Amino acid sequence: MYIGIDLGGTNIAVGVTDENGKIAAKNSAPTIASRPYTEIVADMAELCVKTAADANIGMSDIKAVGIGSPGTVDSESGVVVFAGNLNMEKAPITAEMGKYFDMPIFAENDANAAAYGEYTVCAHKTDSFVFITLGTGVGGGVIINDKIYRGFNGAGAEIGHMTLKMDGEQCTCGRKGCFEAYASVTALRALTMKKMKEDPSSLMNDWARSHGHVSGRTAFECAAAGDRTAIETRDVYLRRVAEGIVSVVNVFQPEILVIGGGISREGDVLLKPVKEYVEKYDFNKFMPKTEIRIAKLFNDAGIVGAAMAAKKRTEAV
Amino acid sequence: MYIGIDLGGTNIAVGVTDENGKIAAKNSAPTIASRPYTEIVADMAELCVKTAADANIGMSDIKAVGIGSPGTVDSESGVVVFAGNLNMEKAPITAEMGKYFDMPIFAENDANAAAYGEYTVCAHKTDSFVFITLGTGVGGGVIINDKIYRGFNGAGAEIGHMTLKMDGEQCTCGRKGCFEAYASVTALRALTMKKMKEDPSSLMNDWARSHGHVSGRTAFECAAAGDRTAIETRDVYLRRVAEGIVSVVNVFQPEILVIGGGISREGDVLLKPVKEYVEKYDFNKFMPKTEIRIAKLFNDAGIVGAAMAAKKRTEAV
Repeated sequence: MYIGIDLGGTNIAVGVTDENGKIAAKNSAPTIASRPYTEIVADMAELCVKTAADANIGMSDIKAVGIGSPGTVDSESGVVVFAGNLNMEKAPITAEMGKYFDMPIFAENDANAAAYGEYTVCAHKTDSFVFITLGTGVGGGVIINDKIYRGFNGAGAEIGHMTLKMDGEQCTCGRKGCFEAYASVTALRALTMKKMKEDPSSLMNDWARSHGHVSGRTAFECAAAGDRTAIETRDVYLRRVAEGIVSVVNVFQPEILVIGGGISREGDVLLKPVKEYVEKYDFNKFMPKTEIRIAKLFNDAGIVGAAMAAKKRTEAV
Repeated sequence: MYIGIDLGGTNIAVGVTDENGKIAAKNSAPTIASRPYTEIVADMAELCVKTAADANIGMSDIKAVGIGSPGTVDSESGVVVFAGNLNMEKAPITAEMGKYFDMPIFAENDANAAAYGEYTVCAHKTDSFVFITLGTGVGGGVIINDKIYRGFNGAGAEIGHMTLKMDGEQCTCGRKGCFEAYASVTALRALTMKKMKEDPSSLMNDWARSHGHVSGRTAFECAAAGDRTAIETRDVYLRRVAEGIVSVVNVFQPEILVIGGGISREGDVLLKPVKEYVEKYDFNKFMPKTEIRIAKLFNDAGIVGAAMAAKKRTEAV
């Protein structure tokens, strides 16, 4: 059995999985990100013991632990080099975790871990796989020849920071016009609010009043109800997503491209127009086409991927 | 010894190289692309024999032949699936070449072959390498773990068709706003002509009159002479190039990124501002940085890369 830990800015999620990534038990606890990393790791260790017990095993039955962390992670040394939303800088989290458990412990960037999770549940192994999360930000992971692609320095596969529109919307990374600045839930919310203001009669304004907020679902739900401005909002957003995915496909031509993150719960409403757009604008006109899918694991992708990447790395030793 | 063939829309270039890619002899002949592929291959074969003779060896001393071809190339089967500027569709060029020589013969996309050529002359082997050509179009090649990255269908690494500006300039691929539509020599010429029109007093107009045409060098040469509009033209172009390279770096974080193609002959005038821009806007702020270089092989990259990729594939068999 393996343990996968999805260390987030808000919650720590821990899961015990079998050799195939099937979750036997899972638990979570608040991260309280302002704390020193040693305290966060102490809570992670406690959650591991608890979750193993819930799965009716002991920690001695665990072959390896994998941790997925946001930010820049040096997966060779197991150090979180920098993670703004965790208040961590050069935090040796695998070494710290090693004080609790005498077993192989590995760390990965969280988007890479999630990508590896979705990759493991594909029907067949493929030599080229891309995962894109449309969440608060836009994350990504690339699996080539059964390995997480990290670039030479571990910081690769930042698909959210490919350019979509030079000199366009401000991105959190300091540049303008990144894919993330157009395809994240944050960007969709900003677009939704702009369109609501332009059309006060739009159903989206009623939705916002009754829900007390605007979310990534506002435009999708009101579009489904037939509201014209909501349909326009949704379609502008989807075209931006599709445009970025064409760019990714032209670069990687992956056999499978999986879309995850909050927006992916829209299912076919997201998938169908994106597929049609990529089919039309993909540079490749003569060879087999990338298969585009919706994620299967959703929130569990981080846990499963961290566990399975740890398994893979244990086997490689 | 190996033979590398750079099959272009205008010329066929053939080179005999040693085990390290050093060219012992080379020759070229017009492609006459309107002909059936069988005639083109016949000329390629004749050039091989001639070039081997020039290198004082016979074809029996050649271990393998590599062909770099434009368009969509199925490198597994050795078929040029489609190449518009060669008038080829489903042309089995390695099988046809096999009628002349009884030895391993391989085909690659020409940009991939050139990338592999530049990769082989790097000071050291690296596990992540990207090559970008700024020529008539923008081509690219990616070498990961000593292998040409092709995607699952062989059509990958089309770096010229990453999005740079959604809804921007028309690209030859049918989409708008591709990197190629901003960073190619074609795009630079269009920008130059636009700026010349806006400022009839610019030195670039004199340059064009005295040379009888506008080229990718017009803006660079007039900028070097201090012409303000030429400097502006050059800098607008260089920023577009740099913006696309940031995008590539954010995705691949390659250890080495090499810029080739006609524009790369500008050397430091190109390299310095691009490096500064990437240094500033690269998403990676905490790990070692990609090293950006100018190509070393220029026009020989295709020959050397085709030969060395053929060598690599022979060894892998």
